[in-house]
Amino acid sequence: MSTPLQHSHLSALEKLKKHRQLLSVDEYVTGILAHDRAILAQAITLIESTHPDHYLLGQEVVEACLAHSGKSLRIGITGVPGVGKSTFIEAFGIHVIEQQHKIAVLAIDPSSQRTGGSILGDKTRMEELSHHPSAFIRPTPSASTLGGVARKTRETIILCEAAGFDVIVIETVGVGQSETEVKSMVDFFLLLMLAGAGDELQGIKRGIMEMADTIAITKADSGNEQAAKTARQNYKNALHLFPANENGWIPQVEISSSLEKQGIEKIWEIAERYRNEMSVKGWFTENRRRQALSWMEQTINLQLQHRFHSNPKVQAELARIKEKVANGELGPFKAAELLLSIV
Amino acid sequence: MSTPLQHSHLSALEKLKKHRQLLSVDEYVTGILAHDRAILAQAITLIESTHPDHYLLGQEVVEACLAHSGKSLRIGITGVPGVGKSTFIEAFGIHVIEQQHKIAVLAIDPSSQRTGGSILGDKTRMEELSHHPSAFIRPTPSASTLGGVARKTRETIILCEAAGFDVIVIETVGVGQSETEVKSMVDFFLLLMLAGAGDELQGIKRGIMEMADTIAITKADSGNEQAAKTARQNYKNALHLFPANENGWIPQVEISSSLEKQGIEKIWEIAERYRNEMSVKGWFTENRRRQALSWMEQTINLQLQHRFHSNPKVQAELARIKEKVANGELGPFKAAELLLSIV
Repeated sequence: MSTPLQHSHLSALEKLKKHRQLLSVDEYVTGILAHDRAILAQAITLIESTHPDHYLLGQEVVEACLAHSGKSLRIGITGVPGVGKSTFIEAFGIHVIEQQHKIAVLAIDPSSQRTGGSILGDKTRMEELSHHPSAFIRPTPSASTLGGVARKTRETIILCEAAGFDVIVIETVGVGQSETEVKSMVDFFLLLMLAGAGDELQGIKRGIMEMADTIAITKADSGNEQAAKTARQNYKNALHLFPANENGWIPQVEISSSLEKQGIEKIWEIAERYRNEMSVKGWFTENRRRQALSWMEQTINLQLQHRFHSNPKVQAELARIKEKVANGELGPFKAAELLLSIV
Repeated sequence: MSTPLQHSHLSALEKLKKHRQLLSVDEYVTGILAHDRAILAQAITLIESTHPDHYLLGQEVVEACLAHSGKSLRIGITGVPGVGKSTFIEAFGIHVIEQQHKIAVLAIDPSSQRTGGSILGDKTRMEELSHHPSAFIRPTPSASTLGGVARKTRETIILCEAAGFDVIVIETVGVGQSETEVKSMVDFFLLLMLAGAGDELQGIKRGIMEMADTIAITKADSGNEQAAKTARQNYKNALHLFPANENGWIPQVEISSSLEKQGIEKIWEIAERYRNEMSVKGWFTENRRRQALSWMEQTINLQLQHRFHSNPKVQAELARIKEKVANGELGPFKAAELLLSIV
């Protein structure tokens, strides 16, 4: 015999399946809180929608889920193409699930339009994980709107947490602008690096190494073990020269083989230790408070800029003034004043 | 016999000296272009002034000098208190002057209110340099206005260049927010570090090492030589692990002793080599174009934020909404929308 809650939830799901029609906010929220993956997926689609009604409905669902969110460890994982992100996340995810967790993997690929989307959608990338009932894999589409990808990803995190996923992985390619954004929405930032010195680093954007809470040297297998160990020592030495983190955490360097399932357990242990240490210090909560405020401020700033640049008078003058500034004919501050005076 | 230009310049200077009265834009510009240090100093004071008339006059002088500016090598020098910035800049400045250059040193100290201003004003810090006719030393006061220090510093660079200074040093303490700003106004960024591992780095802000075009290990004297050499090797190894600079430059690491005047010449050679290589590649000019446009955009953005936060309705709501966001009661995007909807 079903409870009224289950009943209403089931009928909502039926509606969704049969007619692909929209549910009410309550129906989405009830479904998500009942850990219903189909309804979770539909709610994420609302967030991603460019249709105003769908989008607004999605926003209400997010706000309603907010009180049920936050109880996860949010992990950012980045690395250049070829570093073995997919196989790492597959092995890592399976291990995490074996520790009785539920994992959601959200993949951001700002470069998908250029590269053909190797990071994206493609669930065959993570064969075992994608079929596991305790895993949920979802690509985040490249959004064209202001701060769109970041916002949608953050909102998707909320929904996944409300749906009972207690480990959230945000996957991104370490070559673009998105790492700073990812850093500012996760608790723990893991950088995957290949063994061997120098050349393979060319693809990593400057500044990313200093963001890492842990570096994992991947592909420490198939005769590559010694190179990986050398790389670990080199990175340890390098990180030692970096200034200390504000939170007192010393970034760790580990070697791993997704193929041979080596080092994966260790990296999860480090992530858990990080959470425990930061929680004891109060830093875990403080970091999330700061992140939330920072997202609010950034959203306001982006929107103010958007309004400014949408002004037809600004649009009429901007190119000409920029040209003068670039050529040194007009000082940048004077130019800014000129443009600001016309709105 | 004096030319009309010299004549008008001399009488302007007389006016300035006798009555401390304001000159006309033309008089300031003529004086600056004639390399008159008293008039240069007065014009900088106008830029720094909070008096609207003086400030606007200063802006006109800056705009008029713009066409005569840009022909210098702009060098940012940073390091924690105790690293020996003053003695380094003294030795470096004297060496640069011996190579037939004229050097202006502009010191920014955002922390002067807290620390008592050790970096500031105090010309006795650089005894020899401050009395040299080819040197001009000027502290930049902590400005309370938005982006104020950065703006005033950039404008002061313009005036110093127009006054014939062809090496501009921007000095800052490597512990605050100002390094990113300094990086974005200079051609070459030099980080001073002490020898010895680890502890002394605690004071350097994360991210600064990756900004450096060159690291100089200071105080390689008085028995500290071996530690300095070890530090150099460690930093070289660490920098090797960093991703490449977009401009292809590989950051150098040198040891120096301001006391024994060792390594100073080498560091100047590196700075000159940097300029030459970057000029050949077109990067020198491109970097300055980007910097100017970036300053324009930043100024616009700061001003838009300032207008928003000055709105009484925003001020009335902001604290309450921030509190809700920090507590997780309200999502950051929703909060931003709420605030944006009231202006």
